[in-house]
Amino acid sequence: MQIAEMIKTHPKDAGGHGEALEQCIAACYECGQTCNACADACLAEDNVAEMRECIRLNLDCADLCFTTGRTLSRLTSPDKELLKKLVETLATSCRKCGEECDSHAEKMAHCGVCAESCRKCEAACEALGRALS
Amino acid sequence: MQIAEMIKTHPKDAGGHGEALEQCIAACYECGQTCNACADACLAEDNVAEMRECIRLNLDCADLCFTTGRTLSRLTSPDKELLKKLVETLATSCRKCGEECDSHAEKMAHCGVCAESCRKCEAACEALGRALS
Amino acid sequence: MQIAEMIKTHPKDAGGHGEALEQCIAACYECGQTCNACADACLAEDNVAEMRECIRLNLDCADLCFTTGRTLSRLTSPDKELLKKLVETLATSCRKCGEECDSHAEKMAHCGVCAESCRKCEAACEALGRALS
Amino acid sequence: MQIAEMIKTHPKDAGGHGEALEQCIAACYECGQTCNACADACLAEDNVAEMRECIRLNLDCADLCFTTGRTLSRLTSPDKELLKKLVETLATSCRKCGEECDSHAEKMAHCGVCAESCRKCEAACEALGRALS
Repeated sequence: MQIAEMIKTHPKDAGGHGEALEQCIAACYECGQTCNACADACLAEDNVAEMRECIRLNLDCADLCFTTGRTLSRLTSPDKELLKKLVETLATSCRKCGEECDSHAEKMAHCGVCAESCRKCEAACEALGRALS
Repeated sequence: MQIAEMIKTHPKDAGGHGEALEQCIAACYECGQTCNACADACLAEDNVAEMRECIRLNLDCADLCFTTGRTLSRLTSPDKELLKKLVETLATSCRKCGEECDSHAEKMAHCGVCAESCRKCEAACEALGRALS
Repeated sequence: MQIAEMIKTHPKDAGGHGEALEQCIAACYECGQTCNACADACLAEDNVAEMRECIRLNLDCADLCFTTGRTLSRLTSPDKELLKKLVETLATSCRKCGEECDSHAEKMAHCGVCAESCRKCEAACEALGRALS
Repeated sequence: MQIAEMIKTHPKDAGGHGEALEQCIAACYECGQTCNACADACLAEDNVAEMRECIRLNLDCADLCFTTGRTLSRLTSPDKELLKKLVETLATSCRKCGEECDSHAEKMAHCGVCAESCRKCEAACEALGRALS
C-alpha cells in the first residue's frame, strides 16, 4: 500500500506523530481485510452454527477498521478528541474479535491469521491513542 | 426504511431496548446520508476553501454513522461494552459535525438540514448508550 | 430521511432527473439496511447452514447499496457513464439477492421483507439508468 | 496484507483463478486507501476550487474499491455474473479517476501516486474479468 507516500505528499503534515499514524492506518486496512475474509471463511465451515459469534464480531470489526483507516488517512483539520475515541473503540473491537478468533485458531487457520491481525491493530490503535494524548 | 420490521422478524430479540435501538439505527442512516450529501454540497459552494473543516467532519461522521447503523442492526451475539463505546464515539462525532454545520446554517441551507440530523443522531446515541448501561 | 431536502439545497441541480435520483437514493439506503440486517437474521436461524448463499448475497448487496447511495448523492461533477454502470450493476445484485431471499420468504419473514426491498431497489436502479441514457 | 493467507486457509477454493483474485483484492484495497487519502489531500490544496471533480471521482472510486475488495474476498457461493459486472464497473471508475488524477500529477505528487494505484487497479479488474469469463 502507498500509505507512507500519501502522508508524505499531503499538503498538511501529520502533526508529529506520522509514524504511529502510518502504522495504525496500515493495521486498520489489514485487519479490515482479514476480518471481512474471516467472516466469510467461518460461514463456509461445517460447524458454522458454532461460529456465529465469531462471524458477527468479524463483521463489526471489519466495518470499524475500514472507517477508522479512512478517517485517520484524512490530515485536513483533524480533531484529536474524536480520533482518540475512535482508536480506543477500535482497540476494544480488535481485542474482542481477536480473543474470539484465537479460541478457534487451532482448528481453523483463517481464525489464527485473523487473530494475529486483530492483535496488531489493537496495539497500533493503543500506540496512536498515546501519541494523540 | 424497514428497520422496525427487520428487528421484529429477527430470530433474536433486541434485549429489551428495541425502541431505543430502532430509533438509533434510523438516526444513524439518516445522519450518514445527510453528512455524505452535505460534504458534496459544501464542495460545490463558491467558498469551498472555507468549508474544508466542515467537509472533513462530514466525511468522518458519514463513515461512522453507516458503520454504527450496520453494527447496531446485528442482533446475533451482541457485545454491550463494544456497542456502548461505539454509540458514545458516534455521539461525539455528531456533536462536533453538528456544531460545525450549525455555524454555516444561516448561509447554507444544506448545513442546516445536516446539523439537525446530527443533533438527532447524537441524542439517539446517548439514549441508546443509557439503555445499554 | 432528508434526501429530497439535501438535493433541493445543493448548489448544483440534479440535471433534470431529480425525482428518479431521489427515489433511487432512498431505495439504495433502504435496501442496504435491509440486506445488512437480513444477513444477520439468517445467521441466527437454526438452519444457518442452508442460508450461506443468502447471507453472502445479502452482504454483497448491502455493501454495493451503500456505495451506490453515497455516490448518487454527490451532485458535483457527475459522470453519467459511471453512474449508469453502477446502477446497472446494483440492479443485477438486487435481482439475485431478491430472488434468493424470495425463495426463503415463506419460512422466514425477514427474507420476505428483504426481497421486497431488493425488488424496489432493482426497479429504482433501472428507472434511473433509463433517465441517465 | 494477509490476502494470500486468507484465500489459502478458506474452506472453499478460489475456483482456479486464485492469483488473479488475490492481485485484484490487493489492488482494490490499495486503490481505495489511495483515493480516499487523495480526496483529502486535494481538499487541503490552495486551489481546492479547481480540484472538485478530482475529489468527487476520488470519493466515488474509494467507496467502490472497498466494496469490490470486500466482495471479492468472499469465496462462499460466488456469483460469477455479478462479480464480472462489479470489476468491469470498478475498472471504469479507476480509468476515469486515474485520468483525472494524472492531469494533476505534475503539480501534485499525491495525484501522481493515486493515478498509479488507479491504473494498477484498472488492470487487475480487467485481468480478473477475463479470468471470470
